[in-house]
Amino acid sequence: MSMEEKQKRGYIMPIGGRESKDVNPSILEKFIELSGGKDAVISVIPTASNLDDTGDIYVDIFRKMGVQKIYNNKITNRIDANNEIFTKQLGESTGIFMTGGNQLLLSTILGGTVVAKMIRKRNSEGVPVAGTSAGAAFIPEHMIVSGDSGLIPRVGSVSMAPGLGLTNKIMIDQHFSQRNRLGRLLTALSYNPYKTGIGVDEDTAAIIDCDGNFYAIGSGALTVVDMSKVEFSSVASTAPGGAISLVGVKIHTLLDGDFYNTKIHEVIRKS
Amino acid sequence: MSMEEKQKRGYIMPIGGRESKDVNPSILEKFIELSGGKDAVISVIPTASNLDDTGDIYVDIFRKMGVQKIYNNKITNRIDANNEIFTKQLGESTGIFMTGGNQLLLSTILGGTVVAKMIRKRNSEGVPVAGTSAGAAFIPEHMIVSGDSGLIPRVGSVSMAPGLGLTNKIMIDQHFSQRNRLGRLLTALSYNPYKTGIGVDEDTAAIIDCDGNFYAIGSGALTVVDMSKVEFSSVASTAPGGAISLVGVKIHTLLDGDFYNTKIHEVIRKS
Repeated sequence: MSMEEKQKRGYIMPIGGRESKDVNPSILEKFIELSGGKDAVISVIPTASNLDDTGDIYVDIFRKMGVQKIYNNKITNRIDANNEIFTKQLGESTGIFMTGGNQLLLSTILGGTVVAKMIRKRNSEGVPVAGTSAGAAFIPEHMIVSGDSGLIPRVGSVSMAPGLGLTNKIMIDQHFSQRNRLGRLLTALSYNPYKTGIGVDEDTAAIIDCDGNFYAIGSGALTVVDMSKVEFSSVASTAPGGAISLVGVKIHTLLDGDFYNTKIHEVIRKS
Repeated sequence: MSMEEKQKRGYIMPIGGRESKDVNPSILEKFIELSGGKDAVISVIPTASNLDDTGDIYVDIFRKMGVQKIYNNKITNRIDANNEIFTKQLGESTGIFMTGGNQLLLSTILGGTVVAKMIRKRNSEGVPVAGTSAGAAFIPEHMIVSGDSGLIPRVGSVSMAPGLGLTNKIMIDQHFSQRNRLGRLLTALSYNPYKTGIGVDEDTAAIIDCDGNFYAIGSGALTVVDMSKVEFSSVASTAPGGAISLVGVKIHTLLDGDFYNTKIHEVIRKS
């Protein structure tokens, strides 16, 4: 198979929550553009939300922004998540959007079902997958479930579980500076320092390409945690609650338009 | 590439700890056999152990059992883990064995290094990888770090982190019946019920093939936790410390020679 013939994976787009929906909705506009613009067929997945109308609200937003075909994939249990109606709708879609709520509702309801398989398949075929807040948390292979606020990494300050698995190179945290989450992201990365961490602020997103490179979009910042030069992590010998010694972590703050090359671990600034 | 040309992944072999080394060492014999018998070249990785002589002890054991070429890959920090001496030795090896100790020493020292990449590469090329106790815990994509004893799954009773990543279909726990670990394995599986769990007793191992099917060997049992028919997991709405409601978990106890087909979720008994 030549490079030309090889279908590229679609973008993945974790959003830090509270993305602007009315005035200057640049993040949702970018998602629509990546999904095909006016010809986009968008599937909304409101499974993370306990509220009844979360899916309808996003359908209205996307419609007002000019998208003509939008499905509300209202999946609330594991029987729904094995229903072919939803896989058919996802199979037609050129963009998939997961709302906020609780990431454990996404993982416990979708995990191992045909809907989870179809989202992965569509992304591998080139379809962009976005998620905001809990929807962003669910995107990677290793998902942050919950944790404590604070700057310093501490044993037990974060809980991880298997996520949707659209990337295994990147660990994602959201509402990042607003909820003071650097400590828990460092903790999550300290166990096995092979990943890049992205802390995504509110009204901010990372647009991650098929090679794991990404750029920032929105009004806040991405905090990039580069573990590639870490010389030491004490987590193996630190007691529960204790601070973790980490040596060699590199951190970058990316703003709208800035780009990060994950392979060579370098930032390319917009200007 | 035809099926014949395609190189099959090597077996992975999680051992539940305390495998017999003198009288009837059937598990270590099986590992040697899978590694090529008398012609095997075995790499021991004692990184999980805090003891100075763990690697040498296994080198002696394998030598007494007839293996002629054995490397002690004594990797104790991240600088070692990027040293080409070790990748060269692993590159020659036809069997790789990780000792017990603390799985966080394996993940914090090897994670993201050339040694971790070489172990994965050798396994993908057909080389069997075994690990006992902490070495077994480190094998899968999602590794159990620590947890509580007990039968009932509870929120917070288990801590997970990224492991070596030789399988993403299976979650492994060890010293299983001896340390009463069903509750923590169920908890680990409850977050995203797409995996099969294997609880491995002491002096017992699972021999897992490239498709994720496996059989039991040794004097104890494998407890297989099949999540494929789970209808409900309450973990999204359960408070920390609370018991998790799980509906539809299937459990099998496999003894020496029994086989489990992961694709169709069925046991084939030895006799």
